[in-house]
Amino acid sequence: MRSVSIGRLAVVVGDHPEVFPINYAVDGGTLVFRSGPGSKLDTALTGPVGVEADGVDPETGTAWSVMMRATAMTISSPDELLGTVALRLFPWHPGPKEHFVRVVPDDVSGRMFTVVDPAVWWTPLNATRQASPE
Amino acid sequence: MRSVSIGRLAVVVGDHPEVFPINYAVDGGTLVFRSGPGSKLDTALTGPVGVEADGVDPETGTAWSVMMRATAMTISSPDELLGTVALRLFPWHPGPKEHFVRVVPDDVSGRMFTVVDPAVWWTPLNATRQASPE
Repeated sequence: MRSVSIGRLAVVVGDHPEVFPINYAVDGGTLVFRSGPGSKLDTALTGPVGVEADGVDPETGTAWSVMMRATAMTISSPDELLGTVALRLFPWHPGPKEHFVRVVPDDVSGRMFTVVDPAVWWTPLNATRQASPE
Repeated sequence: MRSVSIGRLAVVVGDHPEVFPINYAVDGGTLVFRSGPGSKLDTALTGPVGVEADGVDPETGTAWSVMMRATAMTISSPDELLGTVALRLFPWHPGPKEHFVRVVPDDVSGRMFTVVDPAVWWTPLNATRQASPE
């Protein structure tokens, strides 16, 4: 997950799963992201979270995805906060993001595969629409 | 969500949110994706789901993300299945994906913003590590 800096954070709001993009940095065996106040932060801190990141290597056509079941906590001690400076965590979104959140994985799973040629899924039916005289 | 074909599907497994990448197509006001059998499919069909898609326009530096709270159902009628052919839904992953799943949004939210220059987040502290004599 070091090769990308965008992931998706999933939380459960009521009984509904919700997903948000996050800009994260890898710090030891954890992820750190910045957040403003709000329901995303509150929910992340009070229940289990899921974080997913994925990517494709355009040279090899290899796609990968990693999913973590995890626990999130705010970083509040001055020492730890100073440590986040070295992470160079620069979110894309300009809003205030005064909270630093650390995501500690409970369980990590992932897969890697070669992206298949779309023709694999092609059937003669796919041509029907174009071949129609209308 | 028409401009990209990769989204992330969130489901709740036990009380944990989990996130998976999906290749989807927009069909009317719904999304359709293909899935093999397994826990992702079972969980998606028996509880609420969340779907998120995002992207960045490299020319304008505008980032967007859309999140749907939604309900998923399998497409089983022959008529509807034939209709999926026109969607040209070609997953990247080569495994068997005999199930077509329709995701019907209950609620859609989104945001759009201009990606900020990383310098916005820069503080003199960020330079400390490099400037250190060690």
